[in-house]
Amino acid sequence: MTKTARILVINPNSTVEVTREMDAALAGLRFAGGPIVDCVTLAEGPPGIESQADSDSVIAPLCRLIERTGDEADAYVISCFSDPGVHAARELGVGPVFGIAECAILTAMTLGDRIGVISILNRSIPRHARQFRTLGVTSRIAGDIAINLGVVELGDEGVTLDRMTAVASQLRDDCAAGVLVMGCAGMSRYRTRLEAAIGLPVVDPTQAAVGFAIAAVGLGYRQFTGAPVPD
Amino acid sequence: MTKTARILVINPNSTVEVTREMDAALAGLRFAGGPIVDCVTLAEGPPGIESQADSDSVIAPLCRLIERTGDEADAYVISCFSDPGVHAARELGVGPVFGIAECAILTAMTLGDRIGVISILNRSIPRHARQFRTLGVTSRIAGDIAINLGVVELGDEGVTLDRMTAVASQLRDDCAAGVLVMGCAGMSRYRTRLEAAIGLPVVDPTQAAVGFAIAAVGLGYRQFTGAPVPD
Amino acid sequence: MTKTARILVINPNSTVEVTREMDAALAGLRFAGGPIVDCVTLAEGPPGIESQADSDSVIAPLCRLIERTGDEADAYVISCFSDPGVHAARELGVGPVFGIAECAILTAMTLGDRIGVISILNRSIPRHARQFRTLGVTSRIAGDIAINLGVVELGDEGVTLDRMTAVASQLRDDCAAGVLVMGCAGMSRYRTRLEAAIGLPVVDPTQAAVGFAIAAVGLGYRQFTGAPVPD
Amino acid sequence: MTKTARILVINPNSTVEVTREMDAALAGLRFAGGPIVDCVTLAEGPPGIESQADSDSVIAPLCRLIERTGDEADAYVISCFSDPGVHAARELGVGPVFGIAECAILTAMTLGDRIGVISILNRSIPRHARQFRTLGVTSRIAGDIAINLGVVELGDEGVTLDRMTAVASQLRDDCAAGVLVMGCAGMSRYRTRLEAAIGLPVVDPTQAAVGFAIAAVGLGYRQFTGAPVPD
Amino acid sequence: MTKTARILVINPNSTVEVTREMDAALAGLRFAGGPIVDCVTLAEGPPGIESQADSDSVIAPLCRLIERTGDEADAYVISCFSDPGVHAARELGVGPVFGIAECAILTAMTLGDRIGVISILNRSIPRHARQFRTLGVTSRIAGDIAINLGVVELGDEGVTLDRMTAVASQLRDDCAAGVLVMGCAGMSRYRTRLEAAIGLPVVDPTQAAVGFAIAAVGLGYRQFTGAPVPD
Amino acid sequence: MTKTARILVINPNSTVEVTREMDAALAGLRFAGGPIVDCVTLAEGPPGIESQADSDSVIAPLCRLIERTGDEADAYVISCFSDPGVHAARELGVGPVFGIAECAILTAMTLGDRIGVISILNRSIPRHARQFRTLGVTSRIAGDIAINLGVVELGDEGVTLDRMTAVASQLRDDCAAGVLVMGCAGMSRYRTRLEAAIGLPVVDPTQAAVGFAIAAVGLGYRQFTGAPVPD
Repeated sequence: MTKTARILVINPNSTVEVTREMDAALAGLRFAGGPIVDCVTLAEGPPGIESQADSDSVIAPLCRLIERTGDEADAYVISCFSDPGVHAARELGVGPVFGIAECAILTAMTLGDRIGVISILNRSIPRHARQFRTLGVTSRIAGDIAINLGVVELGDEGVTLDRMTAVASQLRDDCAAGVLVMGCAGMSRYRTRLEAAIGLPVVDPTQAAVGFAIAAVGLGYRQFTGAPVPD
Repeated sequence: MTKTARILVINPNSTVEVTREMDAALAGLRFAGGPIVDCVTLAEGPPGIESQADSDSVIAPLCRLIERTGDEADAYVISCFSDPGVHAARELGVGPVFGIAECAILTAMTLGDRIGVISILNRSIPRHARQFRTLGVTSRIAGDIAINLGVVELGDEGVTLDRMTAVASQLRDDCAAGVLVMGCAGMSRYRTRLEAAIGLPVVDPTQAAVGFAIAAVGLGYRQFTGAPVPD
Repeated sequence: MTKTARILVINPNSTVEVTREMDAALAGLRFAGGPIVDCVTLAEGPPGIESQADSDSVIAPLCRLIERTGDEADAYVISCFSDPGVHAARELGVGPVFGIAECAILTAMTLGDRIGVISILNRSIPRHARQFRTLGVTSRIAGDIAINLGVVELGDEGVTLDRMTAVASQLRDDCAAGVLVMGCAGMSRYRTRLEAAIGLPVVDPTQAAVGFAIAAVGLGYRQFTGAPVPD
Repeated sequence: MTKTARILVINPNSTVEVTREMDAALAGLRFAGGPIVDCVTLAEGPPGIESQADSDSVIAPLCRLIERTGDEADAYVISCFSDPGVHAARELGVGPVFGIAECAILTAMTLGDRIGVISILNRSIPRHARQFRTLGVTSRIAGDIAINLGVVELGDEGVTLDRMTAVASQLRDDCAAGVLVMGCAGMSRYRTRLEAAIGLPVVDPTQAAVGFAIAAVGLGYRQFTGAPVPD
Repeated sequence: MTKTARILVINPNSTVEVTREMDAALAGLRFAGGPIVDCVTLAEGPPGIESQADSDSVIAPLCRLIERTGDEADAYVISCFSDPGVHAARELGVGPVFGIAECAILTAMTLGDRIGVISILNRSIPRHARQFRTLGVTSRIAGDIAINLGVVELGDEGVTLDRMTAVASQLRDDCAAGVLVMGCAGMSRYRTRLEAAIGLPVVDPTQAAVGFAIAAVGLGYRQFTGAPVPD
Repeated sequence: MTKTARILVINPNSTVEVTREMDAALAGLRFAGGPIVDCVTLAEGPPGIESQADSDSVIAPLCRLIERTGDEADAYVISCFSDPGVHAARELGVGPVFGIAECAILTAMTLGDRIGVISILNRSIPRHARQFRTLGVTSRIAGDIAINLGVVELGDEGVTLDRMTAVASQLRDDCAAGVLVMGCAGMSRYRTRLEAAIGLPVVDPTQAAVGFAIAAVGLGYRQFTGAPVPD
């Protein structure tokens, strides 16, 4: 790499505090001489993505942002646990695109056997179930339980950490989870405290996806999403 | 039902010939005292939906059309084999929404054991694979093979039927398919000829989904897509 | 269709009250100009089908009844949640045959993500588990819980509805079911009350199967159950 | 065991030559002090079981035969690859009942990784596919290919062995099968010749099931098919 | 068989009391004229196998023991529920090799629908989960719950049977298990008492595997573990 | 990280040329301020790991090497596609341990839909099939085909690349693979040439695993392999 590689992490909701938190959580993956990791906010996004409609609504502006970025980025991370637009963005012919839910689950598969997911809202759970089936890893999912706080309420640290710990205990004790995935991009700040409280490894999805992106730019992976054979 | 129930079939591509063909294919499901089945074209759609980006691009206008329709329809069929916007539309709080791919596969499961899918393009195949995994029916899929004609080329009857027959033979003879699904909304006119040529039942996806919609309006099914328990 | 199509719904137990209840539950699927839907009782059946042996015992008289009916019916619904004789009947070369369990599950797959099943007896549950695996949809089943009332006891409305509501709550709250299937042909009368009590869509299996049959006769589906390639 | 245990192997087709061949194939499992292994023919059965209807038709007489036998047998083998009546017979409260298809597949799972099945007729294949899904072992099945000879034609040794060898080669070379199951009770005599020709272990289903029955009577297994908890 | 066949049961832990208990549990499978069943202790093994490292550590001495035995045994049972070295031993070109966990699960699949596993320690559970996925039978597993006693503590009959009964009740009542597998080679003595207490069939893994071995030597099964086609 | 993190890549075969090739393939993942990536050869290993026995034989020396290394490494990569000792090493209480097969497959899942695996020998294929089932990702595997060259023969570039290209074409054209995994640690040098020849992304397993390790040390993942709840 003559030019330093750059990974663009896109927060598809418009809440800049969430972007800021993501950015802070990525310190451990910024190495001198390593890829630049920049986090941006999708201005067109809703304040939080809490439904399938919210998730689908950001696909078009996300793809436009990626296309505008052109060769100014070498890999992309879409930092929402619904993985909005991941498959559409992969068709753009740019560098590899990573969804944070898929990368979190795939990372967790190396850190424990059965995976417990901590979601924000009950209504996220059927959407996640579809994502896990799409990914093809259903036999590794121990359970998915919600703390029932909206994306913007995640800032109340006392309440949030209490609920996360309660849900994590349930996943560990009742569902036999051996590793936990935080099912929302806005939970990064709680990761180490939750690990300490619960005694299991905890995966933050944005961190996990940036890990995949660093390897991808270092190794020059191509993205493939079209036909195995040309039409 | 004091008022006659109405099913709205939405062609999310903007090619009115395709809408017309759908409409013609639904004659057998229109009963004097049964639900009205109306087909409309989504003006904002692309001429044909041939990629994930095409599919995602119609979700927002589709949802707006459904919301505008309000209580003037009792059930909705989204007539594209990528099932665009099905999950988002289900959150709108309107009548039940049916995707034609899901309904075609579920119908085929009652007509034969292993299901062969005839796709338009090689690049549709990974998208379909994701859909079938999401649906959770992978063990019933015998194969998915493309005829490699674009949506608009499907009008050339000689070429299309020849290719469909060749692919269908391969699915039957090499993949042991016992029932076929036409993996595109624009293939209706070929169904009976293909059945005659190949000796297997053939499912047209729009027809299958309207079948589901008729039952749904007759029985008053509610759509449920949110949380099993309120947040 | 020059001649009006006719769907024969066969209650394979000999309890005519059950047949009468099925018949009443199908009002919403009888359209002027649509297929005739007739319900008959299999005289040779036991009063209720509560074991694998009960289920298997009706296959031969069921097939004889279907053969006797000949071209006086265009599609058949076997109205017992064990789906007795469905695969044997499909070999008879008559119109399509639908099992009510398979059609209920396939319908539920369009109305919610994970499916909860309400069974009559504990001993039905392993039989259902086999059916769901045979169908190939195990990843969509949230749970199967019995109310522990026999087929003939289902007429006691107070007790039955209370138990159904309790089981449905368990399926929704503990198993995260988003749609319910009533796992017996004799529960139709409780469907709307259960939906109101529990806030989830509820599928009655006979209703679901008649929905499939209406589409099948309207569209002229052939049944295929033999070899993909002639022997 | 004060009284010598007895295993009853029931050939549910009425062709006594098939029963005789089964009997001969079981020599290796008859030990001086071990269980008696008796083979009987179900007089009421068809000459060969070649369809789902054939298979279902023998359930009632099979169960009557088992009930009549009462405590004169300690375990039962139903020697037809469709496993007719296995689940109904398990409800009779007699000794354990084994289906030869399930036992053949379970045995093959210890002798190789992916299992190839040699069937008699193309139309057996969808029936087997249902059985394998019911058993829950689909990920271990490499393929199922028919020799297209009826049960009674299996006596022509030259033709049969040639076709079995051709199908076995296809399963080994094209489907990567590492162990073969003969998918019919009437193929025993070909087992060792096929093993020699093809270089893979070959499982005869009746032999496999009698193996299970010997262990069951030696160890006093109870059969359980009802409700985990009493109704 | 001119020479009496011999099955070698190897206890890969070095605790001779465990070997003695295995030996006693196999009485029902020793028939006059049948195969000799000998149990030996692997001197190099740890006192109990309670981790993946323990399990892997015995593979090399196990394989050496099997090679040394040469043609003095016709089949081998590796009597530890982690199935250590089963796949390596199968490559040695000796008679068939059986793992007790795989044989216990495969046997249980014929005695009930969903299988409950009683483990010794919580930390066995992820290891078992990997084994069940490897075997390809995940859809048949109802649950796996530990009694949390080490291998050597299993000798305290009062405590052990109480805990086993409590876990078995949980598997039956909460997980809907219809058959139980004792997930350790040192539990044989509790099998009949547990069956009486819980009302479900209980499978002892060493007994199950010796059942497979008896059939294998009687029928002359070859082991196949290499390439379907020579390299 | 006050001290620079260090990843130890262990080649468990004793062929130093293979270690050297791994080392060269990791250039793209060495950043000035990033973790040190050191490759070492396991002196006790066989020249190539080509069987289950070879694979199991290195577990003990591998674990001893890891224990000896103690806190001189922060994460470990076991660089053999059989993933020998991964689960045992995870119990050692050291930093996270990554198997190259699991990491290659998990990485490929982000780059294409169905995964084709290029193996060295036919006899690797059943071993890989077990690994993929253990991992729980069978529905994503398109095929696994061998080039039939031993580990040491991989140095003959002309022959090897020709065979790899032929196998890759088969995986792409006949199995509909959309991404390829090189199923051996000694194929790194062919990756970019194969990508150019075949037009699909190609994953080298050692590269993929080091990618996981870099993220793990940057983020401080703990390894968890024991009981979800203490015994």
